[in-house]
This record gives sequence, structure tokens and C-alpha cells, in this order.
Amino acid sequence: MTTRLAAELLGTFVLVFGGCGSAVFAASVLSADNPNINMGIGFVGVALAFGLTVLTMAYAVGHISGGHFNPAVTLGAFLSNRVEGSAVLPYMVAQVIGGSLAGGVIYVIASGREGFSAVESGFATNGYGDRSPDGYSLVAVLVAEAVLTAIFLWIILGSTDRRAPQGFAPVAIGLALTLIHLISIPISNTSVNPARSLGVAWFAGSEPLMQVWAFIVAPLVGAAIAGFTYPLLFPDESDHVLEEIGS
Amino acid sequence: MTTRLAAELLGTFVLVFGGCGSAVFAASVLSADNPNINMGIGFVGVALAFGLTVLTMAYAVGHISGGHFNPAVTLGAFLSNRVEGSAVLPYMVAQVIGGSLAGGVIYVIASGREGFSAVESGFATNGYGDRSPDGYSLVAVLVAEAVLTAIFLWIILGSTDRRAPQGFAPVAIGLALTLIHLISIPISNTSVNPARSLGVAWFAGSEPLMQVWAFIVAPLVGAAIAGFTYPLLFPDESDHVLEEIGS
Amino acid sequence: MTTRLAAELLGTFVLVFGGCGSAVFAASVLSADNPNINMGIGFVGVALAFGLTVLTMAYAVGHISGGHFNPAVTLGAFLSNRVEGSAVLPYMVAQVIGGSLAGGVIYVIASGREGFSAVESGFATNGYGDRSPDGYSLVAVLVAEAVLTAIFLWIILGSTDRRAPQGFAPVAIGLALTLIHLISIPISNTSVNPARSLGVAWFAGSEPLMQVWAFIVAPLVGAAIAGFTYPLLFPDESDHVLEEIGS
Amino acid sequence: MTTRLAAELLGTFVLVFGGCGSAVFAASVLSADNPNINMGIGFVGVALAFGLTVLTMAYAVGHISGGHFNPAVTLGAFLSNRVEGSAVLPYMVAQVIGGSLAGGVIYVIASGREGFSAVESGFATNGYGDRSPDGYSLVAVLVAEAVLTAIFLWIILGSTDRRAPQGFAPVAIGLALTLIHLISIPISNTSVNPARSLGVAWFAGSEPLMQVWAFIVAPLVGAAIAGFTYPLLFPDESDHVLEEIGS
Repeated sequence: MTTRLAAELLGTFVLVFGGCGSAVFAASVLSADNPNINMGIGFVGVALAFGLTVLTMAYAVGHISGGHFNPAVTLGAFLSNRVEGSAVLPYMVAQVIGGSLAGGVIYVIASGREGFSAVESGFATNGYGDRSPDGYSLVAVLVAEAVLTAIFLWIILGSTDRRAPQGFAPVAIGLALTLIHLISIPISNTSVNPARSLGVAWFAGSEPLMQVWAFIVAPLVGAAIAGFTYPLLFPDESDHVLEEIGS
Repeated sequence: MTTRLAAELLGTFVLVFGGCGSAVFAASVLSADNPNINMGIGFVGVALAFGLTVLTMAYAVGHISGGHFNPAVTLGAFLSNRVEGSAVLPYMVAQVIGGSLAGGVIYVIASGREGFSAVESGFATNGYGDRSPDGYSLVAVLVAEAVLTAIFLWIILGSTDRRAPQGFAPVAIGLALTLIHLISIPISNTSVNPARSLGVAWFAGSEPLMQVWAFIVAPLVGAAIAGFTYPLLFPDESDHVLEEIGS
Repeated sequence: MTTRLAAELLGTFVLVFGGCGSAVFAASVLSADNPNINMGIGFVGVALAFGLTVLTMAYAVGHISGGHFNPAVTLGAFLSNRVEGSAVLPYMVAQVIGGSLAGGVIYVIASGREGFSAVESGFATNGYGDRSPDGYSLVAVLVAEAVLTAIFLWIILGSTDRRAPQGFAPVAIGLALTLIHLISIPISNTSVNPARSLGVAWFAGSEPLMQVWAFIVAPLVGAAIAGFTYPLLFPDESDHVLEEIGS
Repeated sequence: MTTRLAAELLGTFVLVFGGCGSAVFAASVLSADNPNINMGIGFVGVALAFGLTVLTMAYAVGHISGGHFNPAVTLGAFLSNRVEGSAVLPYMVAQVIGGSLAGGVIYVIASGREGFSAVESGFATNGYGDRSPDGYSLVAVLVAEAVLTAIFLWIILGSTDRRAPQGFAPVAIGLALTLIHLISIPISNTSVNPARSLGVAWFAGSEPLMQVWAFIVAPLVGAAIAGFTYPLLFPDESDHVLEEIGS
């Protein structure tokens, strides 16, 4: 189990460091010659970065832990009988620790740039209402986060199914996270992952922390819906417990 | 059959929610600091999103239904003997329902943003003439949609051919849809899929509905051309009925 | 042989239609609200489109013809003993016909937009000196085209080598073409493929045709260098003739 | 061994020519019609180019040399028992030669454009403080380079592990390099590879050379950390020496 928890901690560290780090460091970098030109990676680049963290780490350590890197994924995997109940809490704790360590390293590096302020920049935190990147209401954010997390879980459970092509699941799952960010960065800055939301919320003042409940509740609800419905929608005659993302 | 229809409904839901949703929510999001900078994903991001919906869902449920998610694909698959005739209509109905549900969820979320108007924004609908994003005529749109759908079907039928490398078809097919969008968003906002066109047309006033016929006819014509010609151009000595995209 | 030539013609049609079509239709599409914002796909999107044409068509018909879609590739494959001598000329003719048909279809669709002029727009033709997108000299263009085509061939010959992982070659080769375009669109608009250069040169006045020799000579020279050196640099004890890109 | 060194030299040539070349030639190319629009590939395109050099060359020659293309990777592979000690120095020499040759070819091509100055443009060199693209301090740069190289090595060692899905390692490793660039181009112009840093530093005046030590030390430290810890974190009961990236 220690090995599996190390894999989850490391994977979630990379997810938050890569995804949130790319947003903090690289989303907006104005050209030195013309402030009307953004040389930075914009929302497309951040969406790509988030997806590639999961694609790469699922190939790297998915064969060890299943490559969840996300408490909502662990919940959905448990409800569809893919991970044993005794692993659920330890996995979630390892994920939150890994994500929070990543938030800390981002903070250290970002502080090496003059004029950096985690609070003013937002520090890649999730938010609704005034804190939504494009001004979406709480209801819209809850619906989007729940629906997108359900889609994420259906893709995870389907692509790791015994009947799906073997070896490709990390591609499907990683690029699903890219897809999810392409849709919803303007809505909520995209969570679908409580460990990602918490990992950076500690560092950006009180407002993100007061809204972080939404990015714990909605992803868990969406994951639960998918975890319950997948075995009903797409039943498999044979049992396959503990099938892994990286396999 | 119920399981297969659930897969088609869910896959088309994700296709329209992800592709059209990314266009509605994220294509254009001006920087708060400088209205000359678009932080949003532009046409590149929308093209990527459409492709990733098919790549991911074909890995997730392609092994169940064949992963059509598109009435034109179902027609082409039928004409080249890849799906049985009795499945054609049920598949198409499931696809249109899934796409329309997605249009509804996009509408609900988008309404959570002040000042949103589906009619004014266009709501990611397809169009020609005045409603073409870059002003292309009806003839240009019909030619483009038919040629691109034929290319799409040739790639689908070829990459799922018994003789092609196994397991890679969802990558080829998903990225083919990205390619098609990279070419033709300015022409018609890209359909090649009547279920995608209908899915959002209900919500954006009467004009998109009056033009939607073009995005039913042209894709079906293109798919029929490819479905008829593929077995003639690239004959296979052995029969292979009902081969699936996800396999 | 007819089947193989059909595959080469169709593949090169898609390569030129997708690559040059995305450049003509979609590279630059100004926002209706703000002419300082390009909603279009830029050089990144065109680079992606070129690569995806080869990735997708190599999975679709690579198992039939080897998926060259490019006279320079056919020359390099011949020199490294991957294709028989009698196929070289027919392949090249099929490729030039497929590419030129694609140029014609692009022309028809583009003419459906008011104010379109193939000569003024450049029509995605290759060029040097005054006709280089960013003003590179003839010598720089020749060096770049030869070096990049040699790299392209080394990647093709290596990834289709008996010793490389099986099934992945279309991914490596397609994304190699994306890489090549990311580097060199500003230099020469990127050819590395005489059929691509000729396919659009017919339609854009006399100037592109007067420069097109450079985009026949340099790619063929680069491909010849790689085709000669690959078997010397990376010798294989066993013979493997006619190994195919799509396998 | 000659064959393996040829593979490392060629691979590192492509890495630096493609990655740094795309930055020099294509990152910033203003629209001829509107200097507020960048048609070039920006940081997203450069990140993609770097990753695709490794993805493509690992499929092309990874089965021959292991596809390191980077002295830090060779060090990490040695420390985790993946490459024999006698190969370490020859590999590193071949990598630096290949990278420096690439820097030379970029210089030759770039000189074919009027007004080009390697010193003024920066020539894609790495830097800290005043020479950091977005003004990051030396400490921030050292932390970022060490952490990112450690992540790179964990992904390399994990995805080439006997237990991981076979054949996918070049995808995971190449896209890991894209991810790393998406995060850190603004911080240091991204090295994680001493051969890449040296390859262009020769050509851009004295300042990059005076800072290049940081991009030798930090990547080697990061790689050493990952090389030491990987076998401890994720122990494998069986020995597997000299496993190759391309396999």
C-alpha cells in the first residue's frame, strides 16, 4: 500500500504542479515589444497541460496505483467496484497532500518574480460568481462541475474496462481532462478534482477557501452518479475488480 | 441493443456538450486587462475539443456500440456493411436525443452568465451565407461538408479495417474530426454530423433551424459516397461485418 | 497496384486539402468584434492540420500502399529498399494528381467567399525571398527544406523499422510533419513534399510556379540523403523489403 | 556502440533543431496586415515542438540507443541501473555534439533573414534574472529546473518500466517534455537538458554562456534525485537492466 500511496501522492503533485503551475506561470505573458500580444499559452495551453499531467503520470505509475490522482476518481472507482473500500481514505489523503505540496512549490517559484501576489493573481484557484473567470453563477458552476466529472468518470471506467483496447486508457483519460478544461476554464477555472482545488486554495487568501466547498461537493456528486450508473448502463458478465487505469 | 443505444446516446451527448460547449463557453474570452487579447481557446481549441470528444468516447464505449455518435457515420457504416440495417434508425434516434440533451445542458449553464443570449451568440450553430462564420456561400458550404464527411468516413472505415493496426482507430478518428474542424469552422462552423447540428439548432431562434437541412443533407451525401466507394476502392477478400470503431 | 495507387491518390488529396485548406480557409479569421484578435488557427493550427492528415490517412490506408503521400518519401523509401523500383513513378504520378485535385477543390470552395483572390492570398503556396512568409533567402530555404525532409525520412524509416514498436508509426510520422511545420512555416511556408507544392501552385498565378523547382529539388535531395544513410547508420542483419508505414 | 552514439547524436540534433529552431524561426511572426496579431506559434507551439522531437525520435531510434537525447536523462538512467556506466560519457559527448550542430544549422538558416541578430534575439538560450523571459530569480530558476527534471525522469523511468504498457513510452516521454515547456518557458526558457542549453549558447554572445552552468547543474541534480529515488519508491522484484525508452 505504501508504494501505491507514493504513486498517488507523486501523481497528484505533478497534476497540480503542471496544471496550476502552467496557469500561474505561463497563461498570460505579454510580448515585450507589444502589450497587445500574449506570447503565453492561454486557456488552450493550460487545458493541454492538465491533460498531459494525467496522460504522462498514468503511464508512469498507473500500473502501480491505478492512477487516480483525484478523490472524485477514487470515489467513482470504489462505487463501480474498481478499488477496495479500505484504500479510499488513504488514497484521498495522499492526493490532498500531493496537491498541496505542489501548491507550495508553485508558490516558492512564483515568489521569485518581482511583483507576484498570490491573492491578486488568483493563483489558479477555482471560483463561482465574482470569482468565476467569466462571471458564471454558483448554479451554473455546480451543474458544469458535476456533469463534467460524471463524463470524466464514464470515460475512465469505460476506457479501463476489460473490453476496451488495452494500453490506451492513459491517452483517453488524459485527453479527457484536456477536453474538460477546454470547455470549462471560463466557467469555474475547472476543478473536477477536490485535491486540485484544495492544493492551491491554501495560498490565495480567504476567498478561495470560502468557495472551495463547491469544488469538493460537485465533483464528488458527479463521480458518484457515474460510478453508480456505469455498471448498470454497460454491464459486464464477468467480474473485474481493481482493474487499473495504467493497464 | 439497449446497451448499444445508451452508448450512442451518451457518446453523442459528450460530442455536442464538449464540442459546442467549448465553442459557446470558451472560444472567445477577452482578457480582463486588455480587450485586444483573447485568453479563450479560439478555433484551434474548439477543433481540438470536438476531436477529443470522439477520441475519448470511442475508447470508453466504442467497444459497445461501434462509437458512431453521428447519423452520417451510421449511414456510411451501413452502406459498407459494418452495421446491420435494423440498427440504423434506432442509432440515429439515440444520437439526435443525446445531442439535443447536450444542447439543453449547454443552454442551462450558459444562462448562468449575465447577458447571455443564445440567438445573438449563435450558440455554435452551423450556417451558410449570412450565417457562415466567414461568409461562405451555400454552394461552398455544401461542397465542403460533403467532401469533409466523405474524408471522415474513409478514415473511419480504413482505420477500423481488419487490416489496420488494432486499437488505434479512436486516435485516428478523433483526430480526423479535429482536422476537419481546423479546415472548416470558418466555412460553416463545421457540422459533418446532423445530430450535432440539430442538437444546438433548437435553442438559437428560427434562423439556424431554417438552414439546418443543409447540415443533414450534405453530411449524409458525403457519407454515402464514402460508404459506397470504400469497399470498391479497397476490397478485402474476407467479409467482416459489424467491426467496431473501438476494437 | 491499382488499389495502392488509389490509396496514394486519396491520401495525398487529404494531405493537401487538409493542410493547405486549413491555411487558406482558417489561418487568419479576424474577430467580428475586434480586428486585433485572430480567431483563426494561426501557424500552430496549420502545423497540426498537416500532421493530422498524415496520421489519420496512414492509419486509414497505410496498410495498403505504405502511406507515402509524398514523392520525396517514395524516393527515400526506394533508396532504403522499402519499396520496389517499378512503383516509384506510378506512386509519384498518383501523388501529384491527388494533390492537384485537392488544390482544385480548395479553389472551388474558396471562390464561394466574396473577395477571394488566389493570387493575392498566396493560396498556401511555398516560396523563397520575396515570397517567403518571413523573408528568408533562397539559400536558407533550400537548407531548411533539405534538412527537414532528411529528418522526416529518418523518422519514417526508423519508426517503420522491424525493430520499432509496432502500430505507432503513423503517430510518429504524422506528428513529425506537425513538428516540421512548427519550425518552418515562416521560412518557406513548409513543403518537404513536391506534390503538396505543385498541388496549389497551379492556382496562384505565375510566381509560385516559377519558384516551385526549389520545393521539388530540396525535398528530393534531403530524402535521398536520409534514404542512403539510414541503412548505413542503423544496419539491420535481416532484410525487410516493402515494410509499410501503416503496419 | 557506434550505432547507439549515432542515434543519440541524431536524436539530440533533432531535439535542438526542432525545439530551439521553432522558437527562433516561428514563435513570433507578426501579421503583415496588423502588428497586433501574432501569426506565429507562441509558447504553446514551442512547447509542442520540443515534445514532438522526443516523441518522434524515440520511435525512430529509441530501440537502438534508448532515446536519451539529454545528459540528465543518461545520468538518471545510469543511477537507476537502466544504462551501463561505460556508456555514460560517450552518450553525453554525442548529445552535446548533436545539439551544437543543430545550433549551427539554426544559425545558418536564421542568417538568411535580413536583420537577424543571434545576440539581440536571444537565440532560444536559457537564462535567469535579467535573462529570464519573465524575470524570475536565480533561485526560482534552479528550483523549477531541478523539480521539472526530476518529474521528467520519474515519467521516463516509470513509462519504460517492465510493468507499464509496452510501446507507449515515447508518447508519455515526448508529451512530458511538452508539459514541462508549457509550465516553464516564462521562467527559464526551459532547459531540463544541458545539451539543449549548450547547443545554442555558443551562438548568442557571452551572456548566455556565463549563465549556462545553472542549466547544467540544476537538471543533473533533478535527474540524480529521480534516478536515486525511483527504485526505492517503486521497487521491482526482478532486475531489468538497459531497458530502452523505445521498446
